[in-house]
Amino acid sequence: MTRRVAVIGAGNSKFGKRKDLTVRELAHEAAREAFADADLEPKDIQASVISVAGEAFAAQGAPAAVISDYIGLAEKPTQRVETACASGSTAIRTAWSMIAAGYLDLMMVVGVEKMTAVSTSEATRLMALAGDSKWEYPLGISFPGFYALMATAHMAEYGTTREQLSMVSVKNHYYGSLNPKAHLQKQVTLEEAIKSHMIAAPLNLYDCSLISDGAAAVILASEDVAKKLTDTPIWIKGLGWGGDTMLINERKTLTRLSGAKRAAQMAYKMANITPNDIDVAEVHDCFTIAEIIAYEDLGFAEPGQGGKLIEEEQTYIGGKIPVNVDGGLKAKGHPVGATGVSQAAEITKQLRGEVEPKRQVDGATIGLQHNVGQSGQFVNVIIYGRE
Amino acid sequence: MTRRVAVIGAGNSKFGKRKDLTVRELAHEAAREAFADADLEPKDIQASVISVAGEAFAAQGAPAAVISDYIGLAEKPTQRVETACASGSTAIRTAWSMIAAGYLDLMMVVGVEKMTAVSTSEATRLMALAGDSKWEYPLGISFPGFYALMATAHMAEYGTTREQLSMVSVKNHYYGSLNPKAHLQKQVTLEEAIKSHMIAAPLNLYDCSLISDGAAAVILASEDVAKKLTDTPIWIKGLGWGGDTMLINERKTLTRLSGAKRAAQMAYKMANITPNDIDVAEVHDCFTIAEIIAYEDLGFAEPGQGGKLIEEEQTYIGGKIPVNVDGGLKAKGHPVGATGVSQAAEITKQLRGEVEPKRQVDGATIGLQHNVGQSGQFVNVIIYGRE
Repeated sequence: MTRRVAVIGAGNSKFGKRKDLTVRELAHEAAREAFADADLEPKDIQASVISVAGEAFAAQGAPAAVISDYIGLAEKPTQRVETACASGSTAIRTAWSMIAAGYLDLMMVVGVEKMTAVSTSEATRLMALAGDSKWEYPLGISFPGFYALMATAHMAEYGTTREQLSMVSVKNHYYGSLNPKAHLQKQVTLEEAIKSHMIAAPLNLYDCSLISDGAAAVILASEDVAKKLTDTPIWIKGLGWGGDTMLINERKTLTRLSGAKRAAQMAYKMANITPNDIDVAEVHDCFTIAEIIAYEDLGFAEPGQGGKLIEEEQTYIGGKIPVNVDGGLKAKGHPVGATGVSQAAEITKQLRGEVEPKRQVDGATIGLQHNVGQSGQFVNVIIYGRE
Repeated sequence: MTRRVAVIGAGNSKFGKRKDLTVRELAHEAAREAFADADLEPKDIQASVISVAGEAFAAQGAPAAVISDYIGLAEKPTQRVETACASGSTAIRTAWSMIAAGYLDLMMVVGVEKMTAVSTSEATRLMALAGDSKWEYPLGISFPGFYALMATAHMAEYGTTREQLSMVSVKNHYYGSLNPKAHLQKQVTLEEAIKSHMIAAPLNLYDCSLISDGAAAVILASEDVAKKLTDTPIWIKGLGWGGDTMLINERKTLTRLSGAKRAAQMAYKMANITPNDIDVAEVHDCFTIAEIIAYEDLGFAEPGQGGKLIEEEQTYIGGKIPVNVDGGLKAKGHPVGATGVSQAAEITKQLRGEVEPKRQVDGATIGLQHNVGQSGQFVNVIIYGRE
């Protein structure tokens, strides 16, 4: 019943401190690249779904129309979606559903965030407001704190080590150094990563993703339209959507994100594949512990064995399952509304064999993105395939 | 290909100054009523789509999870959508598409806004931020100003009168007086409405909708599920989605909203009906001129004849097409994220014959909602039917 939907174009702005650019200009940089990639013009697109996580970052209420207009889609229908740091993949699922339902045939998805216009402390405060405004934010906890609790629990329950956390950082910085779009393009040593200054114990600076400016865009098409427009459609094969309790103190465990587990199971079932079939994955490494927990929630490792997976370098290219070989949120950057769309753009290029040679997963045919909002309340797991 | 989707439950909080209630509590008041209406419990629902227009009003970043959790849907997937004052109907279209695509079968849509916690001037400023942050907001225009321009143009081009504007207000206050959920339940005379103090010439106080607190909720189901759960499903028969240029100075005319015209045409075509088939309509009367323009954009009157339609009382019950017989944004109130969902809840109850006797459109079988965001950049027109 559901129609097949493909990604037929992808673009990504440079991530970083883009101090001279506004939200709309960042969006344009990504959209322009996606139009060129698909050999389409704005007039070809029927409607758009826009991901912006924070109105305060954007300094623009109801930002979808401003962005849609500026990227050439004036007079076309548009809407914003928002699920904190998972907004980008929510935009993809939302546009997918309209095409899958037979409602529209050709849509653009844009994710964007401009975060460096405010101070780092203000950015941290604005993000902390996504914690519960009654029971969390007023008590002073912010997102490094939430994930520090998870890291502490994972270390206590499974013996995950300080070194293993830092190994995630070393890997993601290594791949970031190979990605010209990445915010940070420098390698770090394990010793540097271990000895960095503390943010929220046990998480230090190199355990935390970046506050970045950036945008990404993808173009989605129905099967009929996709086949007319491209020889290399990348199909959306499964979409998992998970939630969790708002308060993390109401959860049974802090060593997994149960919404991510449910989303993964839903996506694998819909795509009719298993974790072993995934050739390349983009996971939500907002903090290093989040990548280790993602390995487990996604079935790349057994519960508690995520630390070992990175220690054995199984998530490098050549290992069991290459993860975040674009640098991830840690080194590519994390402009929150853009992140989930950027993951999709990366998987699209990986499955087409079009990324920089040293970080291309040769012959990848199935890819996965895992995008998480708040402390696990919003999770999308989306599986893409060449066929 | 597209699966049929029905509304099987509807709830609406009291609209007004709900000073003791937070966003989540307002949402709960509406959701509880929708669950009772559908004879369902939260555990039955698979996922939710939440409409909140402003994070600043909510004092809560990424509010979907807080709301979802509080209304009993903890651990269920949820997402927010936002298109300014059209957010509510965007939430309905978004949930509709996921069910129509065969992705899910039973979803809740909640719209909510808490606006009176800030001063009226601050609320006006926060709403004005939905104007273009580069070319409109800094120059001082706010939404009464945008619609004042449209009123001036409509009066100049078509001879629409001061009296006709006020007649819309008189009608909507009359029906608000019959609606126990309405923010203002008092009638106004034509003289009072005409002589009220000026806000943005030619629009006076009684031309402007209310700053309100409130919430509404509907439950949507696939055809199979709907038929199992209720004998009175209200079917979603057509959905139109329109956009416009961001800047109103780039539009060819100020006497219509071209996005609303396109959305209406799309909805009528999808539902395979004409404007004459509509028995009851909810239109976005954020200002009285907006209702008159809506009559024309929706095909209830020829261009320029909207003023005459209200003057002849054709939009009262008993007339050609009853409009906003719940009081509309003008008297029921306009808690922005809730408005589009409240319109859908009202149409659902109208088509079931369940509203207060004096304001029930007897035998209504087809209803329409028209919900507009910003100054016309976001428009949804949704058609509902008993069959």
